[in-house]
Amino acid sequence: MTATVPAPNVAPPLDFTALLSDRARKMTASAIREILKITQEPDVISFAGGLPAPELFPLDDVRAAMDAVMTRYGAAALQYSTTEGHLPLRQFLAERAGITPGHVQIMTGSQQGLDLLGKILISEGDIVLVESPTYLGALQSFQPYGPQYLEMPTDEEGIDVDALEELLKGLKAGGKRAKLLYAIPNFQNPTGRTLSKERRERLVNLTAEHGLLVIEDDPYGQLRFSGEAAPSLYQIALDRVGGNPDHSHIIYSGSFSKTLVPGLRDAWVQAAKPLIEKLVQAKQGADLHTPTLNQMIVTELLPTVLPRQIELIRKAYGERAQDMIRHIKAQFPAGVHHTVPQGGMFLWVTLPEGVDTLPMLARAVERKVAFVPGASFFALGGGHNTMRLSYSNATPQQIERGVKALAETISETVK
Amino acid sequence: MTATVPAPNVAPPLDFTALLSDRARKMTASAIREILKITQEPDVISFAGGLPAPELFPLDDVRAAMDAVMTRYGAAALQYSTTEGHLPLRQFLAERAGITPGHVQIMTGSQQGLDLLGKILISEGDIVLVESPTYLGALQSFQPYGPQYLEMPTDEEGIDVDALEELLKGLKAGGKRAKLLYAIPNFQNPTGRTLSKERRERLVNLTAEHGLLVIEDDPYGQLRFSGEAAPSLYQIALDRVGGNPDHSHIIYSGSFSKTLVPGLRDAWVQAAKPLIEKLVQAKQGADLHTPTLNQMIVTELLPTVLPRQIELIRKAYGERAQDMIRHIKAQFPAGVHHTVPQGGMFLWVTLPEGVDTLPMLARAVERKVAFVPGASFFALGGGHNTMRLSYSNATPQQIERGVKALAETISETVK
Repeated sequence: MTATVPAPNVAPPLDFTALLSDRARKMTASAIREILKITQEPDVISFAGGLPAPELFPLDDVRAAMDAVMTRYGAAALQYSTTEGHLPLRQFLAERAGITPGHVQIMTGSQQGLDLLGKILISEGDIVLVESPTYLGALQSFQPYGPQYLEMPTDEEGIDVDALEELLKGLKAGGKRAKLLYAIPNFQNPTGRTLSKERRERLVNLTAEHGLLVIEDDPYGQLRFSGEAAPSLYQIALDRVGGNPDHSHIIYSGSFSKTLVPGLRDAWVQAAKPLIEKLVQAKQGADLHTPTLNQMIVTELLPTVLPRQIELIRKAYGERAQDMIRHIKAQFPAGVHHTVPQGGMFLWVTLPEGVDTLPMLARAVERKVAFVPGASFFALGGGHNTMRLSYSNATPQQIERGVKALAETISETVK
Repeated sequence: MTATVPAPNVAPPLDFTALLSDRARKMTASAIREILKITQEPDVISFAGGLPAPELFPLDDVRAAMDAVMTRYGAAALQYSTTEGHLPLRQFLAERAGITPGHVQIMTGSQQGLDLLGKILISEGDIVLVESPTYLGALQSFQPYGPQYLEMPTDEEGIDVDALEELLKGLKAGGKRAKLLYAIPNFQNPTGRTLSKERRERLVNLTAEHGLLVIEDDPYGQLRFSGEAAPSLYQIALDRVGGNPDHSHIIYSGSFSKTLVPGLRDAWVQAAKPLIEKLVQAKQGADLHTPTLNQMIVTELLPTVLPRQIELIRKAYGERAQDMIRHIKAQFPAGVHHTVPQGGMFLWVTLPEGVDTLPMLARAVERKVAFVPGASFFALGGGHNTMRLSYSNATPQQIERGVKALAETISETVK
């Protein structure tokens, strides 16, 4: 049955491409995942993937949690469950945020949160404001829904709120209006930059004044290893409206992928009830519910394992970031700039104008090191002279050797 | 922080409903899930939900599989993994179907398969043929993508292929063309009916001639407890094109939810490579990948636990179906018809024309029994005199008492 020659009397196969939806034509493969495939040879040091350090995973705790869950819940851990999510998990998240479980929807990874938010909010042609650069996966989730992206300029403190204000004024003057703003205020992917407290407050007020919804994507917020924590946009907005989550225009997306483990795919969205109710409907159609067992395992890990892991990861990633920066400073040629993240997993390298990091990748892989060319992170193109480096999943030796190999590669072009 | 009075100086909250996408306006809550909430009081006998019998779940085997997976894979079981899915799982499914792993995409439950197929295939206004009645969840998945549904008449042997042929001819004569046909050939949800072998062959040929894509949804196919198995549409089409999966117009959706456990959310789609490649892109944006651990657990259960469970479930559901039918025959008033399923979890009851089962539900729940009013399963309305009964998750005592209570309820209306 595996012969590949069609029977002579049958019609030619369908033209599958012609049968795709208009929407499907807007989808593209993730450049990063394609790059990851190339660079997964074991001897290549990869600064490309945004992978959490697996040696820090709480393996024994997860095993113990599985066991406890099966003992406590039995068959219920493996049965269909509610679309909204495991109530004790939603209760924990709600209490932490000062809201109710009715304002929390569990998601199968934060990617699903972004997809379903795009699905319920973005109509064809709606204006969506994104950072320049921004998280590629968000662009990929939103893209099929037909957004018109506008880029917000950013600098070392994140979104340039003055420029955003001008942009919004310009839209208004032209009779247009943005629907949605997508931002990663903490240790942004890909730049590692953090939005300052003062800018957060202005951003919340400005977007409220203009009637914009804001998605605050915060997978890394708890992984701060230096500097001072700033409140979330969500918290600022909540305070601004007297603590009523149904009056807040900020939608918060959180995840356990970077603080516990990513492979369980457990994340959540906090938002006003009318949005949560629509998300529930969207999720019913998308996957009915997040795996029951996985939500219960995560819940089991909340009281003691989660805070311990956060401490562990902060320390490790802080050291790795410091290490990478030290070697970059020592080895990269002059004219190459980099960010100094206060947390998270990434830093961002900017080469002189005119340099293209895409062809550089092949030469870097020859030297056994990989990165992500920065252009992928720009919604409207450009950024060819940038690259994203991840330090989260590399040993000190790998960081030293990898940065050296990268410096040699860059120095071929940047003299 | 939980005060609900907004600060006096803040703007009124956003009109969230006005900010929803056009797509979101097409989404509705699942009537079934709403009904399930009402009927989850412990003393109500529910024939409403399509829940597998939890007392048959292989709890010890799942625990042993978790253990084996953690021992064998360690951190890799909890790390990010490929969008396509766990290779050993795809290999097993591919071998069983006589195709390659490149033709298999793992899904987070078959609901996700339906959602992503709708996403990549259905453009606004595309004609989608569905059985009358059909699976409510499929309608819910497709709905946001803007299909124009056409219903295919069905009878005791499933889709009426003669009527379908006329329908397709009529479309063609009118210069129109259907894009997609969605069918559940085995023990259909909601009717329990099975498409005969002869009709399967005609359906495959007819749809191939008309250049239609067909989604064959088969969550129950292995749960046959009487009669003779018919080949899948997928297998028939594969034979028809000399075994080349890239020349087949049938897309097969399979699931482990009804044969192993539903709470792990593991399912798959088999299709031609150009479609699988687009599904991979869609899935990257939807949830990156199905939870790694869950795929590994399922893979562990394939060699011995899966076949044993299938035997166990077949026997149990067969007995329960027989029981329910025996009591229905003894107790339901004349003029009430029911299907006789050869497998799966459901049977379908048709009351005399003019009777509405929706108001009957409240009276049934007073008698401590629940069902799903059939109207929900009709894409274009109608079917008010029908109901779906599930026998999979009820003891002999519950079936006896439940059917008796239901018979009393029906008899109030049907004399």
